[in-house]
Amino acid sequence: MDMPLYPGDVLTPGYGATKDAKRLDREEAPTITRIPVLPISYADAEPLLKALEGPVAPDSWKGALPLTYHIGPGPAKVRLKLEFEWKLQPAHNVIAVLKGSQYPDQWILRGNHHDAWVHGAADPVSGMVALMEEARAVGMLAKNGQRPKRTLVYCGWDAEEPGLIGSTEWVEDHLEELQQKAIAYINTDGNGRGFLGAGGSHSLQTMVSEVAAAVPDPQTGASIKERRAAVDLVNGGNDRFELYALGSGSDYTPFIQHAGIASLNLGFGGENAGGEYHTIYDTYTHYKRFKDPDFSYGVALAKTAGRISLRLANADILPLDFKPWQQTLSTYLDEVMKTAESMREKAEKHNKLVAQNAYGLAADPKKNLASPTEKPAVPYLDFSPLQNALSKLQEEVEALSKQDLTSLPAKKQEALNSLLMYAEQQLTSEEGLPRRPWYRHQIYAPGFYTGYGVKTLPGVREAIEQENWGEAQEQIKKLAGTLEHMRQYLGKINAQTE
Amino acid sequence: MDMPLYPGDVLTPGYGATKDAKRLDREEAPTITRIPVLPISYADAEPLLKALEGPVAPDSWKGALPLTYHIGPGPAKVRLKLEFEWKLQPAHNVIAVLKGSQYPDQWILRGNHHDAWVHGAADPVSGMVALMEEARAVGMLAKNGQRPKRTLVYCGWDAEEPGLIGSTEWVEDHLEELQQKAIAYINTDGNGRGFLGAGGSHSLQTMVSEVAAAVPDPQTGASIKERRAAVDLVNGGNDRFELYALGSGSDYTPFIQHAGIASLNLGFGGENAGGEYHTIYDTYTHYKRFKDPDFSYGVALAKTAGRISLRLANADILPLDFKPWQQTLSTYLDEVMKTAESMREKAEKHNKLVAQNAYGLAADPKKNLASPTEKPAVPYLDFSPLQNALSKLQEEVEALSKQDLTSLPAKKQEALNSLLMYAEQQLTSEEGLPRRPWYRHQIYAPGFYTGYGVKTLPGVREAIEQENWGEAQEQIKKLAGTLEHMRQYLGKINAQTE
Repeated sequence: MDMPLYPGDVLTPGYGATKDAKRLDREEAPTITRIPVLPISYADAEPLLKALEGPVAPDSWKGALPLTYHIGPGPAKVRLKLEFEWKLQPAHNVIAVLKGSQYPDQWILRGNHHDAWVHGAADPVSGMVALMEEARAVGMLAKNGQRPKRTLVYCGWDAEEPGLIGSTEWVEDHLEELQQKAIAYINTDGNGRGFLGAGGSHSLQTMVSEVAAAVPDPQTGASIKERRAAVDLVNGGNDRFELYALGSGSDYTPFIQHAGIASLNLGFGGENAGGEYHTIYDTYTHYKRFKDPDFSYGVALAKTAGRISLRLANADILPLDFKPWQQTLSTYLDEVMKTAESMREKAEKHNKLVAQNAYGLAADPKKNLASPTEKPAVPYLDFSPLQNALSKLQEEVEALSKQDLTSLPAKKQEALNSLLMYAEQQLTSEEGLPRRPWYRHQIYAPGFYTGYGVKTLPGVREAIEQENWGEAQEQIKKLAGTLEHMRQYLGKINAQTE
Repeated sequence: MDMPLYPGDVLTPGYGATKDAKRLDREEAPTITRIPVLPISYADAEPLLKALEGPVAPDSWKGALPLTYHIGPGPAKVRLKLEFEWKLQPAHNVIAVLKGSQYPDQWILRGNHHDAWVHGAADPVSGMVALMEEARAVGMLAKNGQRPKRTLVYCGWDAEEPGLIGSTEWVEDHLEELQQKAIAYINTDGNGRGFLGAGGSHSLQTMVSEVAAAVPDPQTGASIKERRAAVDLVNGGNDRFELYALGSGSDYTPFIQHAGIASLNLGFGGENAGGEYHTIYDTYTHYKRFKDPDFSYGVALAKTAGRISLRLANADILPLDFKPWQQTLSTYLDEVMKTAESMREKAEKHNKLVAQNAYGLAADPKKNLASPTEKPAVPYLDFSPLQNALSKLQEEVEALSKQDLTSLPAKKQEALNSLLMYAEQQLTSEEGLPRRPWYRHQIYAPGFYTGYGVKTLPGVREAIEQENWGEAQEQIKKLAGTLEHMRQYLGKINAQTE
């Protein structure tokens, strides 16, 4: 299925696949791909690969099997007999609600999927166990009189593996209520030994960074933030704690991309073996031997996600910080502008080479190659609407960050929270991204052509990358509008503080 | 044998291996390596590679055989029985002299080796044929009354493949006479279809560029200079015609590196198949099918090298231009200074990471790795002697290039030529490079650890790369002295023009 168009049930785009929902005919479903794709074992692949002749494959196309890789075609013919089980199958999400003591209609959601391709010890059970332990601890706190102020919703998603179906359909089915009540969604999935990886909405970056500084790494005793910084430094990066941007690939997708709810994705890894992912070898035995033998990173994950959940659930002022968000946005705009600039330089250089017949003279005359032709020139795009919008946004963000919100009276704080909780939703647009309206977030999306891989400022960036200059200029204006809308919204928040 | 120490006969370092020469005992010969090395066929290699176990080899260590590469050790044991034929074997250089009509004691040397590993259709015969055809044409010109003004020496070297032995021993044996009479040495070797590759002394760059502009490419009708520029442009380079710097790997080595005679290396290629190099497959049949089927690039090579030989042999003023030489030198100095700078930055960064225990926190505690320790700080080297020398050199070069030497009276021109012909030799030093006195040129040398690969400004560059800061500072002073000596020499030339 073609998830960059929309994830979830292929037959119910944009609405919940409930028992009696109206379903598309299979033939109409746009996300069912026309070419069947299935991973097969190397034992099954080997005779097929061996039967290929033609040129030897270039190095980067070679696999690890002990044979000489050719790229075909043929000469062998393969007859592929396809069997599909086209039937509806129920999927079961498990949703557990701990009602908040003070703000029952403000929800913090915390989820992990429970379905697996086979045994799924790492993916998803290692993350699910941490979630359940966290839920148990929070439940004990509640029993002992420390019920959180806001409602905690623990979710075990079904049918994540075949296309984020459980979470997507649940979000679609409860969209209105979620957009009324949800403050944040915190996702986990497979977990292992090593370093914290944290992605998500950049307004949550400061809070996650604070939590990471408070959770000890099980192996070294340093904080998980310090270990993350160390590995980044050693790999040539900097020591700033930064959230990566979310594309797709786990159950945060419908929350952030479709509903516009501030989201996080958390997990540890980098010090465990791989190779078992999505196979029959992802077993308890393998996990205990190779991934996280004493389960201490499961505990670390429960501590990390649990602290985040409880901070969000109990904070007087919702812990959103728009300064790193705005700074990150600036780097995205820089990237996008540089992309356009380097595409222009490349096209100019190419056209110069065409004009002086350099390709012609450099080509081997015996190979009978056609010379490249001129490329259309890359126009100068007007980025000023975005630059101006970001600049005004920066002023508003700075004004807000100068306020001491913690000293405001409780009523004011409540009023502020009831605005803050919808801030992320201001970054979505009703009509969504071009050609894929399901994706509504204007800052983050999985790329149209990159599978799970993220494209930030997706409307603008993808139009530029696809050399669709008219659309790029439109999307610049549209995104500037979204940012101006966000600025006004932050202005409203600022006004509340007076 | 360890050629970066000295090439040629391992038993006669620095002097000719003539019949009655005093020879080292084999045990004393420093260039005989202690580990025997021999290329073997894949059929012989396969059982050895298959017998290795241990970890799977990283991708960059894998060969192309259809087996899983392991890095060992063992478990198989291999018993290697070595047989060497330790005996003296005569080698025969063929030297043909066409005495110059006007300046018989000014020599232009033109060489190619005639020995081969097996059949050697490409290496060396394709180059040797072009040399012989050139010699035939020059001979006909002489017979028809157009004998060149200067002496042309055509050389067919023996024993190039086992270590540049023929040319090295001949140069060593005739060193004094060569340093008196030789103006330039022009080398060719295997040749093929495609683009001109030209390396050598940068004072010859302008002349080679002019010749390249005059020789037509056999396939396109454009000049070979235009084709070279086209392929450079398409591969991301610029369209300036530049000689590459000579390291080692063919018979120019003793001429430029040891005797300090301005040298060139010429050949076509880039549009022919490879794989036959140094094997039994380098046959006439293979050459005619895959390398240069109509031998037109052999003709192009004869035209290129022939024009260069005749220009040098007949020029009123020797065609040396020190402007590109000085500019190239500047880029070398930039490179060397940047290397030192980036080594300093790297060491500083490393030491910072050590100080904050980043390596410790980034390492997998289960792997029991020792943390890296502090590196000695990289001192700031004083490059000013080189910068000042180059700056003064530049003034002298510019003064010279402003002169109209062609309008000088013949006697003056002769006097100039008798200085110009020794200019390259001013760039050598009697004591040679550190730990390898055979290599006397201060601008070009094969690297001590890079086989044939060149290191420019070798004394300074290699000391820096080896973090030998004391030696680097010494070599800077020494090279600055060489450049100052060269400046004075160019000053003498300038004085002659008045």
